[in-house]
Amino acid sequence: MPLREGEYFILYGGPKALYLLKYSKGLRFSTHLGELIFPEHIEYGDKLKSNTGHTFYLLFPSTSDLILFIKRKTTIMYPKDIGYLILETGVSYGKKVAEVGSGSGGLTVALATIVGKEGKVFSFERREEFNRLAKANVENYGLSDRVEFIIRDVALDGFGIENMDVVFVDVPEPWNIVPKALEALKPGGFWASLSPNIEQVQKTVFKLEKNGFIRIKTVEILEREILIREGKTRPRERMISHTGYLTTAQIVRT
Amino acid sequence: MPLREGEYFILYGGPKALYLLKYSKGLRFSTHLGELIFPEHIEYGDKLKSNTGHTFYLLFPSTSDLILFIKRKTTIMYPKDIGYLILETGVSYGKKVAEVGSGSGGLTVALATIVGKEGKVFSFERREEFNRLAKANVENYGLSDRVEFIIRDVALDGFGIENMDVVFVDVPEPWNIVPKALEALKPGGFWASLSPNIEQVQKTVFKLEKNGFIRIKTVEILEREILIREGKTRPRERMISHTGYLTTAQIVRT
Amino acid sequence: MPLREGEYFILYGGPKALYLLKYSKGLRFSTHLGELIFPEHIEYGDKLKSNTGHTFYLLFPSTSDLILFIKRKTTIMYPKDIGYLILETGVSYGKKVAEVGSGSGGLTVALATIVGKEGKVFSFERREEFNRLAKANVENYGLSDRVEFIIRDVALDGFGIENMDVVFVDVPEPWNIVPKALEALKPGGFWASLSPNIEQVQKTVFKLEKNGFIRIKTVEILEREILIREGKTRPRERMISHTGYLTTAQIVRT
Amino acid sequence: MPLREGEYFILYGGPKALYLLKYSKGLRFSTHLGELIFPEHIEYGDKLKSNTGHTFYLLFPSTSDLILFIKRKTTIMYPKDIGYLILETGVSYGKKVAEVGSGSGGLTVALATIVGKEGKVFSFERREEFNRLAKANVENYGLSDRVEFIIRDVALDGFGIENMDVVFVDVPEPWNIVPKALEALKPGGFWASLSPNIEQVQKTVFKLEKNGFIRIKTVEILEREILIREGKTRPRERMISHTGYLTTAQIVRT
Repeated sequence: MPLREGEYFILYGGPKALYLLKYSKGLRFSTHLGELIFPEHIEYGDKLKSNTGHTFYLLFPSTSDLILFIKRKTTIMYPKDIGYLILETGVSYGKKVAEVGSGSGGLTVALATIVGKEGKVFSFERREEFNRLAKANVENYGLSDRVEFIIRDVALDGFGIENMDVVFVDVPEPWNIVPKALEALKPGGFWASLSPNIEQVQKTVFKLEKNGFIRIKTVEILEREILIREGKTRPRERMISHTGYLTTAQIVRT
Repeated sequence: MPLREGEYFILYGGPKALYLLKYSKGLRFSTHLGELIFPEHIEYGDKLKSNTGHTFYLLFPSTSDLILFIKRKTTIMYPKDIGYLILETGVSYGKKVAEVGSGSGGLTVALATIVGKEGKVFSFERREEFNRLAKANVENYGLSDRVEFIIRDVALDGFGIENMDVVFVDVPEPWNIVPKALEALKPGGFWASLSPNIEQVQKTVFKLEKNGFIRIKTVEILEREILIREGKTRPRERMISHTGYLTTAQIVRT
Repeated sequence: MPLREGEYFILYGGPKALYLLKYSKGLRFSTHLGELIFPEHIEYGDKLKSNTGHTFYLLFPSTSDLILFIKRKTTIMYPKDIGYLILETGVSYGKKVAEVGSGSGGLTVALATIVGKEGKVFSFERREEFNRLAKANVENYGLSDRVEFIIRDVALDGFGIENMDVVFVDVPEPWNIVPKALEALKPGGFWASLSPNIEQVQKTVFKLEKNGFIRIKTVEILEREILIREGKTRPRERMISHTGYLTTAQIVRT
Repeated sequence: MPLREGEYFILYGGPKALYLLKYSKGLRFSTHLGELIFPEHIEYGDKLKSNTGHTFYLLFPSTSDLILFIKRKTTIMYPKDIGYLILETGVSYGKKVAEVGSGSGGLTVALATIVGKEGKVFSFERREEFNRLAKANVENYGLSDRVEFIIRDVALDGFGIENMDVVFVDVPEPWNIVPKALEALKPGGFWASLSPNIEQVQKTVFKLEKNGFIRIKTVEILEREILIREGKTRPRERMISHTGYLTTAQIVRT
């Protein structure tokens, strides 16, 4: 089935020639390994040669690709962290989840791919600039039907919605969102937040405790690449050793 | 909304009194902190006292809970690993994925919660015992509508299906599945496998290379808990330091 | 060369039958793999059979062995942490180092083996019980000639010595030792402390900064075992994931 | 006590202005933070201003400093790894140890600082260039009295010495050294090797097993820095995630 106008694909010419592109008729793309002129009918899995003779492939983008290649003006939540949180909070088909703040929309995209058309992501952001950016990114990926973007300072004005299965919080002061989450969440539902610094985690956890959240847990997720090569297998020599601490909790009826 | 017959909930009486239960009228449950007699109308988020006065709460189960509490006769894939693979292979609402083998059905459950009613999980297993176990577990969790269980030795007889978005492989000899995955996968689609030993990974990666898979990557995911306590914050003293190596790859048209 | 009265050796009958013993004429020792009666002339590297026929070997103890098998009433500093600190603070032949507190004497032993006869370890402890214990352990290992044990509350009364190359601090409130270390250390010399909790590290680091210490650095050292077995190589499944944070610093003339 | 001709010191102007220098009368040194002209009488712990007014300090170098700042043409063994091996093999005052190969002399320096004047390090290297380099480095640091450098292909010609307490092996094919180590080591003594790739470790371990070594253990040591800052405490975002696997073993009488 040929790619349609607006569909995304990974252009892969090797580990250092990896791009996320949006198909449109007449697409051309230049890399350090030559220029590619895309024919009208291309399909996922196809092979293409650049004008310098380098071979490229067209691949399906993973959710990680969608996140890591997103147009961004903020730090993003990493796939390893998002994957953990999705399992730990039960995000799945049909769920209703809220997110504070939208940022560049990376987490929004991941959540949207999973809750599907019968679920909903409410994405809150207080800065217009980021609201616009996240919205554009989600639209580009064709996921707008299941996401509602709201400009609102949740720390001040609350969520204004209720009955959420999960609330995701990725702002510098998550503790300010804790009391507001009480109203937004279903009883028995999930809190999830990410913070890079331990003092942020401490303030958030103590606030969660004071507000009746239980089953509070903080972890860090480390991803370590292993290079598998004939006779020379070893872990990669450098890695990202810290993105953030992940805190989950559940709320009970009071 | 009161719990319905057959709905699952987490019974939480503290970090060491944590259970996944299935609601049924007249349910009683004994713990080391006393016995619980469940009233007819209970809801998620409710508080209950055991006959010895200990307080318990009813919480929504996370996907991690469903996996970790599953009835099992095999080792299971851990949520930290499943979460990573889901993002890395683009498993999401509506996708069609195949899994070899069913094992106890832990991964099957996670996949089923995400692909939703418009997606499909084909779960292959060659041993009848595990086919039955995984099937029962998925049925119990109410996810049977989107899962098809197949008894079949994929290494010998292939998948017998095609056009899969992703193929998950969790068997001792993943390299035997590689040539069969070629027919089952959409061009540009994803391979994902988990193996505890490095030699298994090496054989699998070399077989993937020989069979035209590209963008091959192997990682390990480490989950480290941080104990957040007033004046005594530190990582937990012991951790699970190895579950398995995770390998992903994508296939191109040949 | 036969073992002499009082010499220590490792008795090794396998990974789960590992003992540190002190040689004496007529020594007998019982294990779950049988009893050993030691002949008068035994040497390092010798093979012995227990009365049940299991083979044991006599090996030189490593410094790690001396530490891990020490008679203890406290938690001990782990070899992985001590090894790092020794390199990071330049502990070597001939150095003069102070230690607060003695604890069970594990660190004292390690330092004593390295500073040698021309060096000196001053080991401070305020509780008589631990002073006695550490002293006995160091004596047993034949290292008393280079260690001076002092009962003294350093936080209150200071060190009472000066010109130290390094000061090691392993007490619950290292920050109380910081101002006292100023007088004990050579200008340009090293501070080293270990604390399990992050709040202890924070207080210590801020106190070090206020007292003119520079080049302050905090790390954690993780030791992960790899099981090397034909076709089944992988990291051990569980590990000690936290012992303590290690802080080093250097002092300048004021 | 003023620094003497040829003594090494750390010049510290901040985390990014850190140098190991050798004192000589009339020393001048240029940095990106200005030039320093050293007065005739300077002492460890002294403060100096560069011509642009930046403050620098003179500190004692740690053993880690001596290793990391060594003149090198090879990769070096990291302090975290050396520290672990020293404790694990009992390197201490008075010990006799052999090392294959000399490389740039980093490990040689660390061992020499510890075995002291009554101990000895025999450092074997088959390539003249590295023999010369390691020799010059050890001489510069004033440790020549306890190190003997030998040009020799140990894999072919053996050690030619015996009665060693420990043998350190840091060459690409450690397994070739194993049979030779049998003659060089005291019965009950220690083998230590470092290899970056898992296949090297496997070959070495299997060769050690075949040659009667026991108590074989392989680990990796990870060093993770924690940034301690008011309200912003967190692990550093990137780290060195792999240097090498460390294997230790002990030999018995045959």
